[in-house]
Amino acid sequence: MSLKRKKISVIGSGFTGATAAFLAAQKELGDVVLVDIPQAENPTKGKALDMWEAAPVQGYDSYVKGTSNYADTADSDVVIITAGVARKPGMSRDDLVQINQDVMKAVSKEIAKYSPNATILVLTNPVDAMTYTVFKETGFPKNRVIGQSGVLDTARFCAFVAEELNISVKDITGFVLGGHGDTMVPLTRYSFAGGIPLESLIPAERLEEIVDRTRKGGAEIVNLLGNGSAYYAPSAALIEMAEAIIKDQKRILPSIAYLEGEYGYNDLYLGVPTLLGANGVEKIFELELTDNEKAALDKSAEAVRDVMKVLA
Amino acid sequence: MSLKRKKISVIGSGFTGATAAFLAAQKELGDVVLVDIPQAENPTKGKALDMWEAAPVQGYDSYVKGTSNYADTADSDVVIITAGVARKPGMSRDDLVQINQDVMKAVSKEIAKYSPNATILVLTNPVDAMTYTVFKETGFPKNRVIGQSGVLDTARFCAFVAEELNISVKDITGFVLGGHGDTMVPLTRYSFAGGIPLESLIPAERLEEIVDRTRKGGAEIVNLLGNGSAYYAPSAALIEMAEAIIKDQKRILPSIAYLEGEYGYNDLYLGVPTLLGANGVEKIFELELTDNEKAALDKSAEAVRDVMKVLA
Amino acid sequence: MSLKRKKISVIGSGFTGATAAFLAAQKELGDVVLVDIPQAENPTKGKALDMWEAAPVQGYDSYVKGTSNYADTADSDVVIITAGVARKPGMSRDDLVQINQDVMKAVSKEIAKYSPNATILVLTNPVDAMTYTVFKETGFPKNRVIGQSGVLDTARFCAFVAEELNISVKDITGFVLGGHGDTMVPLTRYSFAGGIPLESLIPAERLEEIVDRTRKGGAEIVNLLGNGSAYYAPSAALIEMAEAIIKDQKRILPSIAYLEGEYGYNDLYLGVPTLLGANGVEKIFELELTDNEKAALDKSAEAVRDVMKVLA
Amino acid sequence: MSLKRKKISVIGSGFTGATAAFLAAQKELGDVVLVDIPQAENPTKGKALDMWEAAPVQGYDSYVKGTSNYADTADSDVVIITAGVARKPGMSRDDLVQINQDVMKAVSKEIAKYSPNATILVLTNPVDAMTYTVFKETGFPKNRVIGQSGVLDTARFCAFVAEELNISVKDITGFVLGGHGDTMVPLTRYSFAGGIPLESLIPAERLEEIVDRTRKGGAEIVNLLGNGSAYYAPSAALIEMAEAIIKDQKRILPSIAYLEGEYGYNDLYLGVPTLLGANGVEKIFELELTDNEKAALDKSAEAVRDVMKVLA
Repeated sequence: MSLKRKKISVIGSGFTGATAAFLAAQKELGDVVLVDIPQAENPTKGKALDMWEAAPVQGYDSYVKGTSNYADTADSDVVIITAGVARKPGMSRDDLVQINQDVMKAVSKEIAKYSPNATILVLTNPVDAMTYTVFKETGFPKNRVIGQSGVLDTARFCAFVAEELNISVKDITGFVLGGHGDTMVPLTRYSFAGGIPLESLIPAERLEEIVDRTRKGGAEIVNLLGNGSAYYAPSAALIEMAEAIIKDQKRILPSIAYLEGEYGYNDLYLGVPTLLGANGVEKIFELELTDNEKAALDKSAEAVRDVMKVLA
Repeated sequence: MSLKRKKISVIGSGFTGATAAFLAAQKELGDVVLVDIPQAENPTKGKALDMWEAAPVQGYDSYVKGTSNYADTADSDVVIITAGVARKPGMSRDDLVQINQDVMKAVSKEIAKYSPNATILVLTNPVDAMTYTVFKETGFPKNRVIGQSGVLDTARFCAFVAEELNISVKDITGFVLGGHGDTMVPLTRYSFAGGIPLESLIPAERLEEIVDRTRKGGAEIVNLLGNGSAYYAPSAALIEMAEAIIKDQKRILPSIAYLEGEYGYNDLYLGVPTLLGANGVEKIFELELTDNEKAALDKSAEAVRDVMKVLA
Repeated sequence: MSLKRKKISVIGSGFTGATAAFLAAQKELGDVVLVDIPQAENPTKGKALDMWEAAPVQGYDSYVKGTSNYADTADSDVVIITAGVARKPGMSRDDLVQINQDVMKAVSKEIAKYSPNATILVLTNPVDAMTYTVFKETGFPKNRVIGQSGVLDTARFCAFVAEELNISVKDITGFVLGGHGDTMVPLTRYSFAGGIPLESLIPAERLEEIVDRTRKGGAEIVNLLGNGSAYYAPSAALIEMAEAIIKDQKRILPSIAYLEGEYGYNDLYLGVPTLLGANGVEKIFELELTDNEKAALDKSAEAVRDVMKVLA
Repeated sequence: MSLKRKKISVIGSGFTGATAAFLAAQKELGDVVLVDIPQAENPTKGKALDMWEAAPVQGYDSYVKGTSNYADTADSDVVIITAGVARKPGMSRDDLVQINQDVMKAVSKEIAKYSPNATILVLTNPVDAMTYTVFKETGFPKNRVIGQSGVLDTARFCAFVAEELNISVKDITGFVLGGHGDTMVPLTRYSFAGGIPLESLIPAERLEEIVDRTRKGGAEIVNLLGNGSAYYAPSAALIEMAEAIIKDQKRILPSIAYLEGEYGYNDLYLGVPTLLGANGVEKIFELELTDNEKAALDKSAEAVRDVMKVLA
């Protein structure tokens, strides 16, 4: 019988990790394990318990367990990595890469040990390089190690467009390639409201402003919060990807996927449109790009390679 | 036409307020306004924006706005009050009461000014006394000023029972009267798993332990978190009450309601079973109590009156 | 207070009407009244009661009432018309038009009498002409009399594409203009899978086959059923439109809307992309059409005018 | 990997079977196969296709396939049996039993052949005897052959109570033991509104009338419809049980379960409170009964044995 409950583990019990655990429970994707280091064990347990106490009211059956013991994650179907540090004033980018790379190495070892068949979703920044690290450290097949950035970038773009046009978010579709943030490549040609090209609904300069706001979407939230970064939309993005995999939905979602020749790149994790299902990344879609778009994507790829040079 | 969107305002953009805003948006109860003081305007806007950016992924149409300007809350259907301070080491209970009473007064004035037809849900502690304050300060009819404690206490009790019996939370019902915390009066006689009395499924001493854990449920989370208090289950409780009112669901839920003779008390806000619908508290159910239960409820009422003596 | 429950009435308790009532209840759009002629009163009551008996299991609070008395529909927010006969062997198209026109007249009178502020959704065939009839007979403003065909046609197209590509229906968007059935004008240029143009994913001939199957989608079901016509997808389409209106969602959905100059037509109900919200059709989007598309739309408009000549 | 989609097959494509298939798809329990005999193949395909065409609008990914070929049901996780005839005027009860027993035998053979690990839910009447037949014919372990009656009976009871008290169905719980219909044993002692005993909210005679209406709930619908029997509530009941099993929810739901000593009965299928999870009936709860209740249950058991004498 294959009817036993699914299991999702979330590594890192900060705001994003905790919110991801909560959203997974709400959707009853399976039982949820929230994991953090021993020093954070009690708060991790507290958050998990608080979520479980919300279950009778929200009506979900998913059990949420907080722990610092990876044995509790055994046989997870999906593991989400949110652990790592954020860049702080005075920290160089290279320092950030090295610190988080060490975190990825430690986490990968535990995942490979306890959940050798899991599909892994990585959120930790710089996400392209960190996904690559997890891929190498776990030795998992490429389809089962995936990074998140495009679902979030697209969501931000769609939210801004919905607000601009006063149209339901249900009817806005967007499309983002490449890296997260500055080197994001938004394909406005492939963005629509109810199927109508956005380019016919929003003046070009205004659309460009929205694209630019999207590119800086993470920083906008960081600046507003003053102390921390976004977590509602990032965790929602992670859980949409997890749901596609756990429920074998065959969704077309942008993922940071391992490229072996696609779009002309090799041995590189980069944001591309993918088919997500039970086997993780089941397909990579190669879109025809304009020269400008291809140049922007090249720049994005280069930026990723640049970060990867720091990897030990 | 009465089809314009509903509006829910949440006062206080801390963890509980923010989570309540998010849950209201997820349920598409209406558009959501998250309000805090001017000093917290930016983080409030940041949280609201982050929630709105999650909308395209989670698929909800509710717009979430962060603000420090009460004019943005105008014509709210439901206003949820989470503002106020938590008790800190060295702060006396009376200090807490006085500080939060001042907050309630300030908030009540704004609600009465901008949303004279709203129904108000109060979470701020000590919640019985704070609900009373809002009732007096707004001058709203008693049915439209309601405190939350029993939905949360019951949820915790049900979560503990579900885990104890390894049974779906969907099938556990519990019942709590009286004040929040120490003087909570759980009616285990009225608590069931799939309709089966809990008393026949769980040994008496074990059930008493679960009741005791429920009574101290808030402190358990506070101790685990180390720095802060529960917010997932409390905000879920608030939103269940808000939904009952906004959708006129005629739910039977425990509320902190204004008593005029019910259970033998007068001019007192206390936790009792109520019918919640479009008109707020539409009915108070008077259960027959055993002598022990009545004595416990008296003690709970006395504790509330004790706190109220501090009110200016 | 505007928090009283919404009300949806469905005229015609056949398969489509009954299923529409059920779907509205499931979504808790409001209380539901299912209406039919006195001769069908008992089965109408039976179906409504059966739906109400499903409520405790499905967990919806919407009450469903069956009746033959239009007084029960008073003050509906949305009225859905599914009443009328289907074309039977030996019945001329003109006979069908005249019979259903009489039904529309009778129904319109009752709606105008009891729910003067309702928005009306028409499904009865030939739907363009019948929507026109209801518009004239009720005297309602054009934005509050709307016909359904494009949501259904689009759904069929998307279902066929999803199956063809083995991709989630969540990621397929399509676009259909013009009349229902033979003169439907599918804009494959505006149809996407996860934002990727279908024309780049499906060979042209195969896509044409899918378009053709869509055009004949109603007949395909009629032929399979042997005795009756489709009702799951048609009722789902109606309820998506009703939800957009009742929840003021500002959805972009294809509707049969009254044209006054749009696309070059006047005094005509035709399928066009619209914005649906609390005020019914809040906007009509005018797309740039290719010469072929415009010619096809002209043909579609002509077919509608042709039917309308039969109207008394 | 155990992430492949779940599969639910529904045998019998009449109103109940078709509605059950639709509800399973809506809940995305898995892919759905609707099966009927070769003579009904086309209508079965038509209904399934119509449901699939509703998927893009309702937003579910479950594929629905109509077929007359049991090979299409291979490896189902849950199989629901709705096939069989209803009792018609002039047909003796024994005739009914024999006809439907033959149907169960034929169906059991196919299920055992193609889905040896499935859990089976039986709705066909007389349901206690038919469930017994499927148990014997498949040779499946008792926990994986289950009949439905109590979820439906309870739902009807709760719907009537909700209407009587004008209280949300979400807060009504009821409890029914024994056979379906006349010999149903409703335990009003174990029935509550928001945890409050119904006996304290509804006068005894009125409660007795509601119990009596519940007992005759099936006939009430039959009489109203004039031509057919209930299908919305029965199919909802089946799908609630299927969901409990597929999602391993550990629900306490009344089931027709195989008794080996429980309540003093042996080798008998009878309605009792059960725990439903991944392993089907994971536990039978034995309630303490009053003498009257035990006598009523004995009568119910006797009625079942009486029917079983007809079994060949």
